[in-house]
This record gives sequence, C-alpha cells and structure tokens, in this order.
Amino acid sequence: MKVQTQRAFNFNAGPSALPISVLEKAQAELIDFRGTGMSVMELSHRSSTYEEVHNQAINSLKLLLSIPDQYEVLFLQGGASLQFSMIPMNFLQQGKKAGYVMTGSWSEKALSEAKLFGDVFQAASTKEEGSYRSIPKVGDLKFNSDDAYLHLTSNNTIYGTQWTDFPDTGDVPLIADMSSDILSKPIDVNKFALIYAGAQKNLGPSGVTVVIIRKDLLEQANTNIPTMLKYSTHAKNNSLYNTPPTFGIYMLGEVLNWAREIGGLTAIAEQNETKAKLIYDAIDTSNGFYHGHAEPDSRSLMNLTFNLKSKELEKSFLELAKQEGFVGINGHRSIGGCRVSAYNAVPIDACKAFSEFMVEFQKKN
Amino acid sequence: MKVQTQRAFNFNAGPSALPISVLEKAQAELIDFRGTGMSVMELSHRSSTYEEVHNQAINSLKLLLSIPDQYEVLFLQGGASLQFSMIPMNFLQQGKKAGYVMTGSWSEKALSEAKLFGDVFQAASTKEEGSYRSIPKVGDLKFNSDDAYLHLTSNNTIYGTQWTDFPDTGDVPLIADMSSDILSKPIDVNKFALIYAGAQKNLGPSGVTVVIIRKDLLEQANTNIPTMLKYSTHAKNNSLYNTPPTFGIYMLGEVLNWAREIGGLTAIAEQNETKAKLIYDAIDTSNGFYHGHAEPDSRSLMNLTFNLKSKELEKSFLELAKQEGFVGINGHRSIGGCRVSAYNAVPIDACKAFSEFMVEFQKKN
Repeated sequence: MKVQTQRAFNFNAGPSALPISVLEKAQAELIDFRGTGMSVMELSHRSSTYEEVHNQAINSLKLLLSIPDQYEVLFLQGGASLQFSMIPMNFLQQGKKAGYVMTGSWSEKALSEAKLFGDVFQAASTKEEGSYRSIPKVGDLKFNSDDAYLHLTSNNTIYGTQWTDFPDTGDVPLIADMSSDILSKPIDVNKFALIYAGAQKNLGPSGVTVVIIRKDLLEQANTNIPTMLKYSTHAKNNSLYNTPPTFGIYMLGEVLNWAREIGGLTAIAEQNETKAKLIYDAIDTSNGFYHGHAEPDSRSLMNLTFNLKSKELEKSFLELAKQEGFVGINGHRSIGGCRVSAYNAVPIDACKAFSEFMVEFQKKN
Repeated sequence: MKVQTQRAFNFNAGPSALPISVLEKAQAELIDFRGTGMSVMELSHRSSTYEEVHNQAINSLKLLLSIPDQYEVLFLQGGASLQFSMIPMNFLQQGKKAGYVMTGSWSEKALSEAKLFGDVFQAASTKEEGSYRSIPKVGDLKFNSDDAYLHLTSNNTIYGTQWTDFPDTGDVPLIADMSSDILSKPIDVNKFALIYAGAQKNLGPSGVTVVIIRKDLLEQANTNIPTMLKYSTHAKNNSLYNTPPTFGIYMLGEVLNWAREIGGLTAIAEQNETKAKLIYDAIDTSNGFYHGHAEPDSRSLMNLTFNLKSKELEKSFLELAKQEGFVGINGHRSIGGCRVSAYNAVPIDACKAFSEFMVEFQKKN
C-alpha cells in the first residue's frame, strides 16, 4: 500500500497526528481568518479577535476536564522540559523536600532539574535492571505530610506505562506531568495542585505548554524568580504577559472543539481503549512472538511498547511496517524496540490496520 | 473601502503581516506536507523530513545575514522576554558588571530582569520627561573593558526609534535585542556576541525566538543553570534538545526563503526605506498637523510613531483609519498616539494607501 496524497497511518510519539477535520478547518481559514483579511498568525495578540480565540481555548479545556473554579489554565512555552525547572523554582521552598515518583526517563529528568533548587527524594521507583516496566501501587508511595510537593509522570511515553489511579496526598500538592495522556480520559482535577502538558500529543502542535494550577499554590510560590518563570506572572495576565504562541493556541482550541464534538472525554476514553485493545490483543495472542514491554496492569493506552523475539525479526518488522506506510513505529532511540503511539487523533482504523499487519507478519515469520 | 476577503492593510506591531506567498504555500501544503500524508505539524521532530525543514531554516538565516562560521543559530521559545533572564543567567559572571543602554520599555525590562542575577548599570539612557525619543550617540556609551557584556535594543517598537550605527565594544560582548528589526537591512554580525529576536515581526509567527550566538561565548557561560535555560544545551543539540515549535520554524524557514527570493536584505532595506519615507513625508509636510514622536535622526523604519495636534483629532483619525481598513494603527497602550508598523511583509502599496489617507484626513480637518 502506497501512502501518498492520502493520510498516513501516523503513530508518531509527538508531535503526532491531529484530527483531519481540524487541519481542514485550519487550512480553509489560514489566509483569511473569519473575514479579517488576515491569517490568525497575523493578528495582534491584543486584538479582540485573537483574545476570543485565546479565551475560547481556555474555556473549552475547563469544560472538557471539568476544571473547578479554583484553578487557572495557563498557556506557556518551553514544553514539559522547562516545567521541570519552573516547578521547583516556584514551589520547592527552603527547608522543605519534594518527592518524585520515578517511572521513566521524564521522571528522571524532572528530578534531576529539581536538584538545582533544593532537597528532593524518590517517593518510589520502578526502575529494575535499567528499565521501567510498571507503575507503583498508590499505597507504596513514600512521602511526608510537610513535603513541598509530590511529582509524578502520568504516562511514560518511552516505556509505555500509565497511571490509572492517583494518590490522595492530603495537604501535599500533587503535581503531574500529563504531557502524553492529558485529555485521553476523564480525570479528577481536584486531586492535583498542578497539571502540566506539552501540547504536541493530544492537544495540538508543539510550542504550547498547558498548565492547570490551583490558585492557592500561586500565592505560596517563591519570589525572586525571573518574571517569565513565575506562574503568577502568567496567571495575572491571562497568559498574555508577553506574546503567546498564537497559532499554536488557535490550533489547540480547535482540537479541543473537536474533542467536545466527538463526545468529550468519556467517548474519547472508550475509543482509546478500543484502539489499544486491537494492538495488545495482537501481542497477547501471539504466543510470545510479540511481547509487551510494560507489565499488563501498567500498560499505557497511549504508547504501546513491545519487542519481537529477536533483533533481526524486529528489524525486518520495522522495515516492513515503514514500507507499508505505518509511520513512527520505532521505539524511542534510548531503548529501541517497537512503539505504537495511539493518541486521541489516531483513528481506530489505523490501529486496526496495524493490528492486522502484526498478525500477518507473524504468520509469514 | 471594505476589507473582507481581500488582504487587510496590516500595520500590527507584532504578531504582524506575513508575506502572502508564504501563507499561500503553507495553506497548500498544510494537510499533506511534501507527499508524506501528514501535516508538517504532525511530523516527528526526529524525522528526516522535519530535520530538513529545521536545517534549511538555519542555513537560510546564515546566508541572509552572512553569519560567520564562529556563530551558532538557535531556535528557542519564550520570546525576547525570556531572553531578558537567560542572558544574565548565562553571562553575568560574579564580580563583573553588565551595561544596559536604555532606549525604551524593552531595555527597561531587560535591565530589570538582569538585576536578579548580578550587578548592572546604565551605559546610557535617552529617557527624558518620562519618554524616549532618540538613540544615544555611539561615542556617548559608558562602559568598562572588563564588563560582562553590553546590551542594547536595536529598534524600539513602542517609541519608534532605531539604531543605525553600532558601537565597537572591543572585548566586551555586545548583545542586541533585534526583535523588531532583524532582517530589515544588512548588519555586520561580527560586531555582536549575541543577537536575539522574537520571530513575530520580520521572521514569522510568534512562538519562536531566534538566537545568534558566538561560540566562544558558550564556553564562558555560567554553569549550574537549568538545562533548558543554558544556551549550550540548545547549541549542542542543534535546537532539538526537546521538541521545538516545529510549525513556527517551518513558517520562519518559508519567510526566509521569501526574503532571499525578493533579493535579500539589500533589496528589503530599500523597500523599507521607500515605505517609511511615504509616512514620514506625510508627517514632515503637514506643517505640524502630524508630529513624529522620535527625533528625526533616530527614526525607526519599522515602527513609525506620531501624534496629531489634539487628542480629539487623534481619536477621530484612529477611528476613521480603522473604518477604512487600516489595522493596528493605535500606539502601544503604554504611550498612546499613532504607530504604523511597516515590517518587511507590509507591501509598499499599504504604506502608500495610508500616506494618502493621512494627507486626505489633514485636508478635511
């Protein structure tokens, strides 16, 4: 099968597939945005036309995630990687400690950046033999009631594991990097003090970072921080302190509209379960021809990681997959293997086609 | 004149007008980028297709600005506002001082952020009676040969002033915020240790920050800085340490291609002079009906600021301009008045139409 002008089967880990209806709308209005004679990219971020786009995106996210009034939605830049520093810079107070739950490479990076700012500790780690294959039990997390915060990574893009249940941390602010599974299912925002996510998986194009922050946390933040790195700067200015990434926010708003139109997070979660089941079933019924990287009870519905029996077989599997038009199936360069990223905008049909390809490849080998 | 489906006369101060040919190309390939079956926004930043886009943008900028080999071109996020902090964080060493030339609000913000990190001083200031109207003489700058660096703002968007001649600072690294006039004319990059610019004026959409940095400066930088805020992190990783704003970089690359196609910076500078002359002539031949904010020898070719004889007249001028389809003519909310931003992508015809509107308005009033 040749993929040329038709849509690719896009399993990229991020940036990743966007809904075709969103792309078509963006294309149609790219040059003349709603009769302004300008592209949305050419609008002033201080214009009422742009502010409507901006505020609609914020409101759509609030509706989709049922975000309570005591939270602010911010649009920042720099991705999760900059959040790794902004969080301890703002919230790791002198004399306090911050706990990090280690479930993969991104947790490691988050912990490593926090060390620059104060005392940190591992609240749990599932690292075994150099790899991560599971999510710790909620009851196994070790932290103290006076900690500055507890940090976790809700979905591990590289290892293909995902939290299904989040801890009740009482007065300890719970902070989650949800870059790779935000909007994939309903969550109880009330459990979290701060949620952050790079947009380039379920939310839109790269270049926008979404932060959902409980207002009381803003008041407790350290002072003497660069203006741009204070959450309060952006909260006070409705994320318009300086020029925001306007086109990215516009796209994000359109992706959120699409998510609402197709039934919101309950409908999306069902689709994601269906999609993941197609691939995991192909693994589980393969008699060991394919074997999943993650423990079954920690499996991610977003990033489905697996290996083949031998390196040679894996190589020819990946090559053939590419030839057949399946994009982004190679595992992360740090661990190899195979990975299917089945974010919200990946259609069920794409997962079905890949699942059939897996079965077919097994038959022939 | 009604502006509906035709192009607006877009004089926004940023985000601002983009070349129509670039928008048309982006529109044509928005859904299927070069036969991949994916939007450029859906490509992995680790794919060869995206890396070609990324590297072409870097190379085009090197060609256009004749950037010597001892410089790196970086694509960052956070705008000039984040650079205000990154610069002192990286380069304001203990025991040294950094000089700031004060020519407007952005210089003030840059200075204010630097104070968090060490000793700073004003190398010059043209602030008089609460406003800035000129650029200091190069010979009047006060700085010391062992300063950490000297910082200036090459064009002042709000006040409408622009440097035409840059100081030779010897061993003191010269750092320039060129957000609002980069690419508007040829410059001698060799004079600078670091040039930075938010993309949303002459370079592309908002959400990308361009940094041109001399390699030896990277080696002198402070350590113990968050990974994302070290210039060296991005230099070592060809600005692919984490997910870059891929669509913004793609657009930037296309704007650079356009700039090369229309003849490069010499041709662009000529156009900008023609455009600015149309407006400044309308001011200078108005017998005081219009009066420019900037001293004539400090006038900006990018942001042309002026007032009318009375507040009432100014108000009706701005209202009529808006009705006639001229977008973005209001001065910055901090100082009021009128401002025509005539960045590279603003066509000569737009300036001609506005200049005629000015003459016509004067006749009637």
